[in-house]
Amino acid sequence: MVAFLPMIYVAWADGELAPAEMGTICERIRRLARLPEPCSKLLGRWLDPASPPSARDLQRLLATIRRRAAGLSHRERITLTELGVLLARAEGGVSEVERQALVAVEESLGVAGSEAARQLLATRRPAAGPVTPPASFPVAALTRYLDQPRAELRQRVREILRRPEFRYCGDDLDRAAYRQQVLAWCRALAAEGLGALSFPRRCGGRDDTAGFVAVFETLAHHDLSMLVKFGVQFGLFGGSILHLGTARHHDRYLKDAGSLELPGCFAMTETGHGSNVQDLETVATFDRERGEFVIHTPHPGARKDYIGNAACHGRLATVFAQLELDGESYGVHAFLVPIRRPDGTPCPGVEIEDCGAKLGLNGVDNGRLSFERVRVPRRNLLDRFATVDEEGRYDSPIPSGKKRFFTMLGTLVGGRVSIALAALSATKSALAIAIRYANRRRQFGPPGEAETALLDYRTHQRRLLPPLAATYGAHFALRHLAERYAATMEELDRREVETLAAGLKAFATSHATRTIQTCRECCGGQGYLAVNRFAALKADSDVFTTFEGDNTVLLQLVAKGLLTGLKKQFSEMNLFAFVRHVAGQAATSLAERNPVTTRLRDQSHLRDRDVQLAALRWRESHLLTTVARRLKKRLDRGEDSHAALIACQNHLVKTAEAHVERLILERFAAALEACPTPELTPVLTLLCDLFALERLEHHRAFFLEQGYFEPAKAKAQASEETLHRAPPPRRASGQR
Amino acid sequence: MVAFLPMIYVAWADGELAPAEMGTICERIRRLARLPEPCSKLLGRWLDPASPPSARDLQRLLATIRRRAAGLSHRERITLTELGVLLARAEGGVSEVERQALVAVEESLGVAGSEAARQLLATRRPAAGPVTPPASFPVAALTRYLDQPRAELRQRVREILRRPEFRYCGDDLDRAAYRQQVLAWCRALAAEGLGALSFPRRCGGRDDTAGFVAVFETLAHHDLSMLVKFGVQFGLFGGSILHLGTARHHDRYLKDAGSLELPGCFAMTETGHGSNVQDLETVATFDRERGEFVIHTPHPGARKDYIGNAACHGRLATVFAQLELDGESYGVHAFLVPIRRPDGTPCPGVEIEDCGAKLGLNGVDNGRLSFERVRVPRRNLLDRFATVDEEGRYDSPIPSGKKRFFTMLGTLVGGRVSIALAALSATKSALAIAIRYANRRRQFGPPGEAETALLDYRTHQRRLLPPLAATYGAHFALRHLAERYAATMEELDRREVETLAAGLKAFATSHATRTIQTCRECCGGQGYLAVNRFAALKADSDVFTTFEGDNTVLLQLVAKGLLTGLKKQFSEMNLFAFVRHVAGQAATSLAERNPVTTRLRDQSHLRDRDVQLAALRWRESHLLTTVARRLKKRLDRGEDSHAALIACQNHLVKTAEAHVERLILERFAAALEACPTPELTPVLTLLCDLFALERLEHHRAFFLEQGYFEPAKAKAQASEETLHRAPPPRRASGQR
Ligand SMILES: Cc1cc2nc3c(=O)[nH]c(=O)nc-3n(C[C@H](O)[C@H](O)[C@H](O)COP(=O)(O)OP(=O)(O)OC[C@H]3O[C@@H](n4cnc5c(N)ncnc54)[C@H](O)[C@@H]3O)c2cc1C
Ligand SMILES: Cc1cc2nc3c(=O)[nH]c(=O)nc-3n(C[C@H](O)[C@H](O)[C@H](O)COP(=O)(O)OP(=O)(O)OC[C@H]3O[C@@H](n4cnc5c(N)ncnc54)[C@H](O)[C@@H]3O)c2cc1C
Repeated sequence: MVAFLPMIYVAWADGELAPAEMGTICERIRRLARLPEPCSKLLGRWLDPASPPSARDLQRLLATIRRRAAGLSHRERITLTELGVLLARAEGGVSEVERQALVAVEESLGVAGSEAARQLLATRRPAAGPVTPPASFPVAALTRYLDQPRAELRQRVREILRRPEFRYCGDDLDRAAYRQQVLAWCRALAAEGLGALSFPRRCGGRDDTAGFVAVFETLAHHDLSMLVKFGVQFGLFGGSILHLGTARHHDRYLKDAGSLELPGCFAMTETGHGSNVQDLETVATFDRERGEFVIHTPHPGARKDYIGNAACHGRLATVFAQLELDGESYGVHAFLVPIRRPDGTPCPGVEIEDCGAKLGLNGVDNGRLSFERVRVPRRNLLDRFATVDEEGRYDSPIPSGKKRFFTMLGTLVGGRVSIALAALSATKSALAIAIRYANRRRQFGPPGEAETALLDYRTHQRRLLPPLAATYGAHFALRHLAERYAATMEELDRREVETLAAGLKAFATSHATRTIQTCRECCGGQGYLAVNRFAALKADSDVFTTFEGDNTVLLQLVAKGLLTGLKKQFSEMNLFAFVRHVAGQAATSLAERNPVTTRLRDQSHLRDRDVQLAALRWRESHLLTTVARRLKKRLDRGEDSHAALIACQNHLVKTAEAHVERLILERFAAALEACPTPELTPVLTLLCDLFALERLEHHRAFFLEQGYFEPAKAKAQASEETLHRAPPPRRASGQR
Repeated sequence: MVAFLPMIYVAWADGELAPAEMGTICERIRRLARLPEPCSKLLGRWLDPASPPSARDLQRLLATIRRRAAGLSHRERITLTELGVLLARAEGGVSEVERQALVAVEESLGVAGSEAARQLLATRRPAAGPVTPPASFPVAALTRYLDQPRAELRQRVREILRRPEFRYCGDDLDRAAYRQQVLAWCRALAAEGLGALSFPRRCGGRDDTAGFVAVFETLAHHDLSMLVKFGVQFGLFGGSILHLGTARHHDRYLKDAGSLELPGCFAMTETGHGSNVQDLETVATFDRERGEFVIHTPHPGARKDYIGNAACHGRLATVFAQLELDGESYGVHAFLVPIRRPDGTPCPGVEIEDCGAKLGLNGVDNGRLSFERVRVPRRNLLDRFATVDEEGRYDSPIPSGKKRFFTMLGTLVGGRVSIALAALSATKSALAIAIRYANRRRQFGPPGEAETALLDYRTHQRRLLPPLAATYGAHFALRHLAERYAATMEELDRREVETLAAGLKAFATSHATRTIQTCRECCGGQGYLAVNRFAALKADSDVFTTFEGDNTVLLQLVAKGLLTGLKKQFSEMNLFAFVRHVAGQAATSLAERNPVTTRLRDQSHLRDRDVQLAALRWRESHLLTTVARRLKKRLDRGEDSHAALIACQNHLVKTAEAHVERLILERFAAALEACPTPELTPVLTLLCDLFALERLEHHRAFFLEQGYFEPAKAKAQASEETLHRAPPPRRASGQR
């Protein structure tokens, strides 16, 4: 009988067997006629669905089995039958008939292989051993590579942030105190010369735009309120004086802006107009008599809103307003307007409101500004792109108003570059926390074994590793953008950099919002405690998708840029001819793609960088040519362009996204090529593949619909196996 | 010459023409040999790329054109040529030669149709007219339908929440004060009898489970800290006594729990174990001598963590611990353990820590509890499912330990149902705010016209309307679940309800996180101000995906439930046979689908509810059978089930999601059928179609890969037009 104990226990302990099933098992045993009468009777009684054993009986049964099995480990892979036979050894073993009965019962129970026996024998879980496997690549070398360019400057910033006075404290302070703390931090950074870095040497700076961007990126690993206040003061306020003003303004203001002696604001957005800057309603009327501009807020919707530094600390503001001269409007221009006196009270005619509690960035004092016919001298017009002389004569080196407007805005592209990099820094912080935790935290496991580390769960890998790969891709693309940006400071027409910045800003900030959210969720309850930083990371970075250009609006800008770019390539043709041309192209490119490609599905093919790049390029060009065709059709029908663009809006946004993804893969591939440490090639290759393959999988419906992939290939793409094989789960990830 | 002014202006003002292009235009004009010499000379000078006009010249030119065009409106759809001809009328009109020249120049400029002329003539934008079109359906009737069941009770709760003492204030208070406010709110709700609703009448309640759930759902439109504290006290703490205890416990505690005289905790989670409840490490050893249980925290990882009400207010806690008797472990059981004395100090042996600042829900005092051999009387075991008698004999109506454990947990499913409904309420609040704003807020527009309302942008519709449709679907599915839940209170085996609750909880809470985020972003800067509520909605609801069961873990539970369900249908077969059976099915169902379906793509077909349902059902069953096959293969190979499940984890999760989506569409369709107001059919049909089509579009790669759709059909699905036609943009949405 002993041999049957394990099965009897399992039959009841599992709790899944319905009485009818129990009956079936009994029946089956009874039919094994040759089983000795007493034995089959006893079994019948034990398995009688009408009189189940008590909880205590079951517990005792388990104790008996375990006692008898002493010495057997749950690691042994044996079936319940084998276990029964072993248990019965002390009692003289089992007969062949009994063995057959055992097999029959085990089969009826429908328990899988050796699992049931293991569960029976497993007692306490052992504690988990040390988790971290050795890194499969030289970590320090990767860190070094990722720190390029400006490694020392980054290192210096990190050291400053490690000082005790920079200890995090946002969660412990009330809003007023937090704002003061953030101001103090910014002053400390200014004292280190970091704020003025991009200003001319003669104004206390170092003419180092690239350095300023690198500093900003690094600061984004710390408190983001500090970062944004730093950005408002030095990047936006200082930057507007630097880029829109002339030497006179530089000499007069930049030194104090850079030292934070003169806290300032960048007052562009109004309550009624955020994305649509061209339609701002604040007016700056030139009063020829007195040689002054009169800054005025005509109605509450035209007050400046969300303005950083406005609620408490700002003294001077760069105010964007419609310049009016003799009743004619010359479009949006920037003016320096004092808003607060040194004692902190608002200047006459300036009304200041506090925006109050925000979703995040509560260390930044955002406020609203209204102007009641506030007068400023003529020289307060930031006059790099437009002047008004004593006689009230307007002049500009750029005759076209439209072009002047976009050139002005274009000089502010540095903010976009910086915010994109900052979003990525926040993403890296979140991923570092979540992946490290996933490498250590264990939950659930096989019976009798240590629990499984979260990072070994496929769902967890899916949640965290593709975002990690995309973060690497965006890293290389953004570092490249930052270089291009700094290198083209002198050029006025930087449309390429602007398009790049708009696209990558949208990508990086949406990626940040998504990824930080995922990281929070991947850490379960811990993720919800402020001490683990996701609270601040999430809340503070959330607005990155909105400010420095709303992402949906930016992506449309990118798409329009691509359409213009296409047009430029054919500058001899007019718009119509050009659209007809690109419309024709769609067909060509479809024919050009390699028909073999569509059917190959082996790993090496999928991991061929050229194949990946070709697919992303094809997608971009297909989307671009088809949207051009759709737009043309509508324009031909006489629709105005606003309506036509709206009708194709989602298509335009997709086109822009496709463009950005292709760019990122190209930059990733280039960074791989350029990597000076051959030992890093394998790990970077894995990440690059993971980025590319995840994108191809994500868009596989598109590729299938277009016939670029055939179903079998798309499935290979999608399959767990492919993506899983890309990063060996515990290597490429948990190490950094 | 006057006739050429508009073109000259456009040529320069556009700012897009490169010098080379300008040259081309001049060249072309010169070639129109028959143009009078002075005229072509003048034109040549105006268009000379080497000497562009000054900004002032251009401005004057514009003023001249506008003056001459007085009376012409920008609404007139005329080309630049036509405008030029009109302007020249006063000067005697244009010759045929001049007209040809005009046409030629306009063509060279590559400006589209009448747009350029409109831009020229447009001056100020007019203010926007009233926005809201009349509702296309009886709004009150829809409200009534959505308020079912328990409309009056919901109305009563809404009225209570409208009282001045319930004014929002979470953003203005520090943590300590906020916690007190939330406690006060909960007391006020208890005083209204809302907390005890589900308790027996003799304990001050009304035996009204369905009512309690409806109250909870409605409260979720207010401060979510209040909601969660309410849920902890009455749902979790009270509910654990109600469902796991017996009459003795009910009589002794429920009255005070329901009035909040006795604030309590539900202490299940430990630092080391959250999702994996079975492996909790707190122990409750029975001391036979003294007839007491000794509750003990063996190490810091076993302290109770994140426990609501623990940091400040809780006095008694339901503590989950491993019951040990004579050195044998009987698994997790619940014990009532006093943790705080009436004066607020911790009871002896109990150590209490504050979890501190959290991402959200800062009005709830979450804390940590450690027990240093704390003794409680034997009767403090909540003994509905297991008793220990004076002699220390364990007994249970459920012999199987595993089954007992899951039955115990199963009684707590109400928390899951409630949180799912609460998540949906928060989603509805967010959508109401964002859609109303989108209907009013305007940004950008065609020249000279009022700006366009955000809701008229296709991207904005895409962002907000599918989530709106899914919210309706989830609403009907969850209301149905709540009814099923309340109706099965007496049943012990409620696996169907449990699976449903797990699936819909995961769906509703993930949907909430995603949708509230989208709503925030759709409101731009306004969305970031705390006053507009997204800050609190986002932060407070964020943890809903984690507590009451982590979503990733729950979806795996659902999938396992589906596999077990399949198995039950074939209870005669053992697991092996069953898996073989379902594996076979995949092929059959593939063959069974209607081959015509795959090619039809017209609107009526896509909007056929049966077609939609068939597709979602097919997807679910395909995923289920294929995952069963994959699991079987692995088990056959001798893999243990933990490893096998991990290998198929993403597939399992997808299967569960497919199941939930199918269920939601079914419930949506049923609610449509059951709607008593025929006038609501069109709007509900639109929303239901939108939900179904968006899901089909989302999964179109799957359908393509499986050959269920052919590419042309999938494209029809995906096309803007289809989805756009579903909800007439300004009707189905902005109205509520
Ligand atoms: C914390 C914070 C700090 C800020 N600091 C400053 C500052 O220091 N100085 C300053 O000048 N400004 C500042 N801003 C303002 C910020 O730049 C604007 O909020 C941003 O430009 C968006 O404008 P908006 O809020 O008016 O949104 P809107 O432009 O009204 O956009 C609202 C929504 O409509 C959508 N939308 C708009 N237009 C279109 C379209 N054509 N097609 C499709 N969808 C569209 C957008 O995608 C968005 O979702 C700050 C804002 C915040 C929140
Ligand atoms: C604000 C708040 C209030 C709370 N209130 C209470 C309360 O009053 N009483 C109480 O008892 N508890 C409470 N909790 C605890 C809550 O129930 C747990 O946080 C939750 O159960 C998750 O457990 P965990 O935090 O340990 O996460 P874990 O279980 O460690 O999960 C962490 C991550 O790992 C993933 N994961 C885990 N297991 C698997 C697997 N098998 N496969 C794939 N992925 C997996 C999860 O998806 C998750 O992303 C509260 C928590 C919070 C944050």
